[in-house]
Amino acid sequence: MKKVVTFGEVMMRLTPPGYAKISQTETLELTFGGGEANVAISLAYFDLKAFHVTQFPDNTVGKAATQFLRRHWVATPYVTYGPMDLGIYFHERGAVHRSSTVLYDRANSSFANLDPSVYNWEEIFEDADWFHWTGITPAISENTLAATKQALLAAKKMGVKVSCDLTYRDSLWKYGKTPQEALPELIELTDVLMTGTREMILFSDGTEEMEQEDLMKNFQKTFPNLEIIADKKRDSINASLNALSGMMWDGQQIYQTKELSVTHIVDRVGTGDAFCAGLIYGLLTKEGNQHALDFAIAACALKHTIEGDANMVSVADVEKLVSGDSSGRIIR
Amino acid sequence: MKKVVTFGEVMMRLTPPGYAKISQTETLELTFGGGEANVAISLAYFDLKAFHVTQFPDNTVGKAATQFLRRHWVATPYVTYGPMDLGIYFHERGAVHRSSTVLYDRANSSFANLDPSVYNWEEIFEDADWFHWTGITPAISENTLAATKQALLAAKKMGVKVSCDLTYRDSLWKYGKTPQEALPELIELTDVLMTGTREMILFSDGTEEMEQEDLMKNFQKTFPNLEIIADKKRDSINASLNALSGMMWDGQQIYQTKELSVTHIVDRVGTGDAFCAGLIYGLLTKEGNQHALDFAIAACALKHTIEGDANMVSVADVEKLVSGDSSGRIIR
Amino acid sequence: MKKVVTFGEVMMRLTPPGYAKISQTETLELTFGGGEANVAISLAYFDLKAFHVTQFPDNTVGKAATQFLRRHWVATPYVTYGPMDLGIYFHERGAVHRSSTVLYDRANSSFANLDPSVYNWEEIFEDADWFHWTGITPAISENTLAATKQALLAAKKMGVKVSCDLTYRDSLWKYGKTPQEALPELIELTDVLMTGTREMILFSDGTEEMEQEDLMKNFQKTFPNLEIIADKKRDSINASLNALSGMMWDGQQIYQTKELSVTHIVDRVGTGDAFCAGLIYGLLTKEGNQHALDFAIAACALKHTIEGDANMVSVADVEKLVSGDSSGRIIR
Amino acid sequence: MKKVVTFGEVMMRLTPPGYAKISQTETLELTFGGGEANVAISLAYFDLKAFHVTQFPDNTVGKAATQFLRRHWVATPYVTYGPMDLGIYFHERGAVHRSSTVLYDRANSSFANLDPSVYNWEEIFEDADWFHWTGITPAISENTLAATKQALLAAKKMGVKVSCDLTYRDSLWKYGKTPQEALPELIELTDVLMTGTREMILFSDGTEEMEQEDLMKNFQKTFPNLEIIADKKRDSINASLNALSGMMWDGQQIYQTKELSVTHIVDRVGTGDAFCAGLIYGLLTKEGNQHALDFAIAACALKHTIEGDANMVSVADVEKLVSGDSSGRIIR
Amino acid sequence: MKKVVTFGEVMMRLTPPGYAKISQTETLELTFGGGEANVAISLAYFDLKAFHVTQFPDNTVGKAATQFLRRHWVATPYVTYGPMDLGIYFHERGAVHRSSTVLYDRANSSFANLDPSVYNWEEIFEDADWFHWTGITPAISENTLAATKQALLAAKKMGVKVSCDLTYRDSLWKYGKTPQEALPELIELTDVLMTGTREMILFSDGTEEMEQEDLMKNFQKTFPNLEIIADKKRDSINASLNALSGMMWDGQQIYQTKELSVTHIVDRVGTGDAFCAGLIYGLLTKEGNQHALDFAIAACALKHTIEGDANMVSVADVEKLVSGDSSGRIIR
Amino acid sequence: MKKVVTFGEVMMRLTPPGYAKISQTETLELTFGGGEANVAISLAYFDLKAFHVTQFPDNTVGKAATQFLRRHWVATPYVTYGPMDLGIYFHERGAVHRSSTVLYDRANSSFANLDPSVYNWEEIFEDADWFHWTGITPAISENTLAATKQALLAAKKMGVKVSCDLTYRDSLWKYGKTPQEALPELIELTDVLMTGTREMILFSDGTEEMEQEDLMKNFQKTFPNLEIIADKKRDSINASLNALSGMMWDGQQIYQTKELSVTHIVDRVGTGDAFCAGLIYGLLTKEGNQHALDFAIAACALKHTIEGDANMVSVADVEKLVSGDSSGRIIR
Repeated sequence: MKKVVTFGEVMMRLTPPGYAKISQTETLELTFGGGEANVAISLAYFDLKAFHVTQFPDNTVGKAATQFLRRHWVATPYVTYGPMDLGIYFHERGAVHRSSTVLYDRANSSFANLDPSVYNWEEIFEDADWFHWTGITPAISENTLAATKQALLAAKKMGVKVSCDLTYRDSLWKYGKTPQEALPELIELTDVLMTGTREMILFSDGTEEMEQEDLMKNFQKTFPNLEIIADKKRDSINASLNALSGMMWDGQQIYQTKELSVTHIVDRVGTGDAFCAGLIYGLLTKEGNQHALDFAIAACALKHTIEGDANMVSVADVEKLVSGDSSGRIIR
Repeated sequence: MKKVVTFGEVMMRLTPPGYAKISQTETLELTFGGGEANVAISLAYFDLKAFHVTQFPDNTVGKAATQFLRRHWVATPYVTYGPMDLGIYFHERGAVHRSSTVLYDRANSSFANLDPSVYNWEEIFEDADWFHWTGITPAISENTLAATKQALLAAKKMGVKVSCDLTYRDSLWKYGKTPQEALPELIELTDVLMTGTREMILFSDGTEEMEQEDLMKNFQKTFPNLEIIADKKRDSINASLNALSGMMWDGQQIYQTKELSVTHIVDRVGTGDAFCAGLIYGLLTKEGNQHALDFAIAACALKHTIEGDANMVSVADVEKLVSGDSSGRIIR
Repeated sequence: MKKVVTFGEVMMRLTPPGYAKISQTETLELTFGGGEANVAISLAYFDLKAFHVTQFPDNTVGKAATQFLRRHWVATPYVTYGPMDLGIYFHERGAVHRSSTVLYDRANSSFANLDPSVYNWEEIFEDADWFHWTGITPAISENTLAATKQALLAAKKMGVKVSCDLTYRDSLWKYGKTPQEALPELIELTDVLMTGTREMILFSDGTEEMEQEDLMKNFQKTFPNLEIIADKKRDSINASLNALSGMMWDGQQIYQTKELSVTHIVDRVGTGDAFCAGLIYGLLTKEGNQHALDFAIAACALKHTIEGDANMVSVADVEKLVSGDSSGRIIR
Repeated sequence: MKKVVTFGEVMMRLTPPGYAKISQTETLELTFGGGEANVAISLAYFDLKAFHVTQFPDNTVGKAATQFLRRHWVATPYVTYGPMDLGIYFHERGAVHRSSTVLYDRANSSFANLDPSVYNWEEIFEDADWFHWTGITPAISENTLAATKQALLAAKKMGVKVSCDLTYRDSLWKYGKTPQEALPELIELTDVLMTGTREMILFSDGTEEMEQEDLMKNFQKTFPNLEIIADKKRDSINASLNALSGMMWDGQQIYQTKELSVTHIVDRVGTGDAFCAGLIYGLLTKEGNQHALDFAIAACALKHTIEGDANMVSVADVEKLVSGDSSGRIIR
Repeated sequence: MKKVVTFGEVMMRLTPPGYAKISQTETLELTFGGGEANVAISLAYFDLKAFHVTQFPDNTVGKAATQFLRRHWVATPYVTYGPMDLGIYFHERGAVHRSSTVLYDRANSSFANLDPSVYNWEEIFEDADWFHWTGITPAISENTLAATKQALLAAKKMGVKVSCDLTYRDSLWKYGKTPQEALPELIELTDVLMTGTREMILFSDGTEEMEQEDLMKNFQKTFPNLEIIADKKRDSINASLNALSGMMWDGQQIYQTKELSVTHIVDRVGTGDAFCAGLIYGLLTKEGNQHALDFAIAACALKHTIEGDANMVSVADVEKLVSGDSSGRIIR
Repeated sequence: MKKVVTFGEVMMRLTPPGYAKISQTETLELTFGGGEANVAISLAYFDLKAFHVTQFPDNTVGKAATQFLRRHWVATPYVTYGPMDLGIYFHERGAVHRSSTVLYDRANSSFANLDPSVYNWEEIFEDADWFHWTGITPAISENTLAATKQALLAAKKMGVKVSCDLTYRDSLWKYGKTPQEALPELIELTDVLMTGTREMILFSDGTEEMEQEDLMKNFQKTFPNLEIIADKKRDSINASLNALSGMMWDGQQIYQTKELSVTHIVDRVGTGDAFCAGLIYGLLTKEGNQHALDFAIAACALKHTIEGDANMVSVADVEKLVSGDSSGRIIR
């Protein structure tokens, strides 16, 4: 069983029931999520040995967050506890023309205030096969940028394969560094990159006029260390109805998938993370790059039907969809 | 900030959770609604200064109804309290080929028994820009007909613009008057009329053979005081899937909107009220009649995704849809 | 009012709220269901006099199951109580490409351990017009096979019309008999058969290459006692979106229905039972075989919008859809 | 198994969750209750054959009320359906110094508007052993007074034992008759009377200065037809803590029970009805008047721990408490 | 109707259902609370005209907090909106020997970051009769200390009566000032002080050896501006069972109340605020200081039965308990 | 950190909300429990390293049970998965004179059918300090008896301290062995015994006439290997109100605790397991036998306030009560 390590912030997610708004409700559904932890949970449901590294507040809320990870099969021996609070996000479900909303209360969280020196990455990466990080983490604080860099250097040193979801969020990056200053040296320590076109344009000489395929090829020229550049393409007809397909460049060849129509979206959050987890799993199983991308898109599609942030489907669930069975017939 | 006044009955709405029927449940969701109050709430969420005038029972249930209006930004200084009970309606959500149902328990409510002389309409309309009523109110009792008429006369006298949603309900009109006797003189005191084709045929010499456009033009001949006649057109594919568009005649020109497909209906109730509120807002902002109608249809479409009777979306939410962005992408 | 008798196991159904999985929840929705009892409830909602015969454990759970049947208008004077437990099934709702799942905990239930000699079928069938059984019951245990056979012999003797839903489940048939040994003599005592193509191939010389129409004709040659062979055909686009149509052979003629598109499935379980109940009702009302099949398919379609196992719609609800009104407009 | 008949109004009961007030909640717990039906349910849980006679509205709410009775083992063949609505009451749970509240919305209900001529009491009382009515029913309307009187005359004629809970409510008696005009002739047709001291003073020459024991003896002199006069005595320390004991006069002897301390009240509503049902059961089983009173008080005490209006405990539950085991140890 | 103004932070309160801990739940009950706003709500339920002044974040969560105040009758025209987040507190209900817990996530809230210059206290206090503040507010930040001082100076100038609940919390006071530096000059601007013995010792030469009565007298010597010093005394037998009584010094006389036993606590939070609101109401109605203290203790006792932070009982509810009726009998 | 191992069946627990009965509800609260696993969870919350050994069904329900243990800090590497189902128990909360009830559906569970040979106890006990078993496990099946014996022999061999809760249940022991045949040799392999008087009489020559103290001394004569015999004594005033105290014999001395009054019981289930866990913790920390017993009784008392089967309190929570602080004041 492969060992995978992820590192990043986990937040409490609070959602009104059904399609209510916060101003209409007196109860909130409680779960936890965060891009990297979502990948860990998804991989744990794929029966990999997933470890998540993060910092939580040293109180019952921080403990409950750890307990959430443990419940969903993620190992937590490297979680640290510190002062300050757990980040929170409020989520209102949208439908049709009404967007879902996400409102963050994460400034100055325990995670943002972590001390990078407390993580012994060499111990953490012992026997590890893979390390996954995202562009969110270095955007949070000087501390989390430093910790990410240390992790990447250790991973490189120990021969652990590294993937990154390069997601760029305007609303972060408040601590003084710009992404252009911080990220390139981290990308250079990465092997597998999941990224949209916007990020490729931000961090290379790619332009909006270029096709996605060409952007990928161009981006790899900028960062020749990248073995894989992959993306899911989403056609967002409305908040309840999307169509998905994947594209990937491995330095040799462009791979594409057929389109999957997600006709009744249950939960849109974390679908990108499900794509990443699917791709990591697919690449680790070495059944070929086309299969890895197909697996990633199928996993992503299935996540749209799972409540909460993280994809909780099995390899068999995904392979059924990869094999073309999208009928959703009752399993008895 | 514009001041808008609405007048009408508010009922308690009781709905089984999910798609359950009353015979399947042991809990009911509790909210409040009524055509005119729904308009007031919607306008309050558009940041207008909305006042609702009504009568509630003088008990904890009546107080809770007032509290509901206050919670959703509506001002309630003119609400009166009297004997009898609050009207109630039971609502079962339908889906696909199963209709939603509404079962009224509203006979002999506090509102039906109001004393028209207690409302000082000149005080209520001080600084008011708009007054909205519906064909439901005069259908309830002699008292509510009288109060409506007094309100309209006062509005006219004070130069307050008047709109009406002419909705005709067979199941009302039990107190002795027919709509043909009661309504024409009220329509004559109205400036902006929202009405379906059925009502135009009932109150004019229009016929079922006439196109909606011609009915509007013909109806305005009967009531030349009407500056605007508008309607939403609904193609009801099934209970979960509708398509919407708008039509409007301003005495000069027929306006139409493109069709919006509401692919996953969350709550069908109050969508007509959302159209009215959208149109009132659009006309008040004076960005042109085409924009007013587009705004009304977009507001109506969004209401299909909001739980409860009233539309709780912002002007920005509506304008985004008016501008053509129907993608429903997550807002972070 | 026609009297209809059904016989079969009823299980407790436990479902996480919304689309959650069992590993995500701390509450379960509780209802009861079973193929034959679902038919009884549906017929009771069609205002027939429905009696369900079964065995429950002699404890509060067994009593609650009886109370569920009584609540939904089914008469329970012939229910027996014995040792062991009530069967349970866990149900996770699926959506789009994710299948709903059903996990049974029914081995060694009170029903499986019933004593066939305690049922006085001649008393039970007094004044009865119809008896319905399914292929599930003889698959459970030697006891339930014996009881089914006794019921059928009594029904035949007393001139009670007999229908069967021949559903074959691999996961049952663990007690030593094969379906090929047990079922043919029971089919020979049956008048109206609901069956898919798979079962027709299992119990006759039909082949997978044959069209459904020909399989029906061929199957009736094997069992010439069958007056009616009927099936619903399901096009399962995905777990949330199906299309339905019906086919029936009455020895003279093939009947077909137009296709109904169920665009937003609420609950997929029990839709076959709703078809059976619709067909039984349709045949009992003797408005013609085409109408019976149309009624059955419309009932089946409506069940997809009802929560729980059993169809709780009225004859008027079904007839409205049969008549072509699929608009799902609000009923006030 | 004894057949018992009850007659009276059933209302929908709506209660906020926990100790919330209506102004604090967005969900309501739904159940049904009414003094006489509560007696019927309690007796049905004691394994008697209980029939409730009432009128419900002819809609899904009225059907759901019938289904509630059926679910709780009460037979409903004599229920009639008519126009108007189901009475509703809103209930807020109190605790300690805060009273529970009950707010009625029952004016002009279907029950109040029943047609007395539709009940064939001779058919209803066939094989019946007991009939129970309360002072609420004749207080509602001229119609319900008439129906009560017809029922009592038929019961007398057919030798059915009659009990009455004489509860007097100021808020009723709005239709023109006073209780002093209406009730005496009904009491004269009654055999067993449950009544507090207040009612005995209202309907006889008893005075507030008299002890309860003497009031009972005196009352029976006024109504010598009464075989039994009984009452529960409640020491209401606060809304969560009461002490209960019983007193009874059978024309020969005063019976009393020891005091039961109800230390943690779950639901105070319907505890008087539980006392009546306990007494009826105790008298029917003919184990002596002392035992009947002990049984009634124990049943009453247990009702304080049952949610909803009606007592849902078994004879064994009550006998355990009668026998002095008040330990409440877990039953496995 | 008297106008009362309060000023202070409002937080979102999140509580697991029943007695669950955060680690056991997937839903949280949502309400809002804060010492001063709790006083405002309580006074609004006493039918005074209550205004709360605070700063909320300018997002849907801040709006929902305002809506909560409006729903509970508090006027909010002076609420300001700014950056940062709403303070949150997690509350786990305790019972018996298990304490309830409150875990704050309030550092760096919108309220802490308010700009004191935006509040026009002279406008706010127009026509006001009373201003209430607590020792929490100056403990939060330099900004909130400054705003409190400005409010007090304005109140003094405009002749508005001022009360203070001097609650001292160790966990606050992190911004550089000590309470001994900040509070005395604020106390000097106050007329009515609610305070425990601990605070009196902190801010005067009182000692732990002194009786509460003597501490009050001594404290008033230090702050001769104080017209009233009052406290509730709590005997905490356990988390579910407390006894309450009041003591007050008005410079002339010591007042005491009888003890109220709260035998079944529903919600312990906000009971001190309920005492303050009761005292303010009692003093405003000028029915004598003994009555004011009795009213305050009765209000405090009743709050223990109300869910959420704020007391939502009426004057009649409190007066009933003041008058000695603690029976909690059902009110119909 | 000490390593503790427990072995035994875990069942799904299903409980209606509040005080409802199964026949009144449509939702059930879902948790998991079992005597030995409850001990493991409690010890894990005391920050010991707790491992639970059991067999679960190899399906989503079995996985969810494992996930429950993981969530509550128990390590599960030795859990095995097999055929059959998870045991279930239905629990109805009682109050005052109404007992809580527990109804088992556990016959023929996966655990009962485990293969004893699959557990490698020498590996499991590596570095272990303590092993805990109960009298329930050998009562279930020949297989579970065999596994218990193998575990005990291995523990003895490896020097692991062994404790047992000797609970005797009549309703088990159905597989052919009597407890008198099976248990003595297991008790002989045990060091610390928790037992009531009933079990001591069953397995020794103790008699009902003997005082508990003497029974303990006598029992230890029969089993001189026992270092500790301990029991909690419960005075069950009613289902909501109990008093607790402890007694213990260590071969030298009788220890007793003061009585703790549990005035408002939240959940009675698992309180004996909480006592066991408290005693194990107390003995492991070696602060003296009196402290160990005091800790055990305090832990037991606190469990009565925790929802679910297992005690989820911290060492600090227990020590606070041991130190005499039973005030339950809010912890902020």
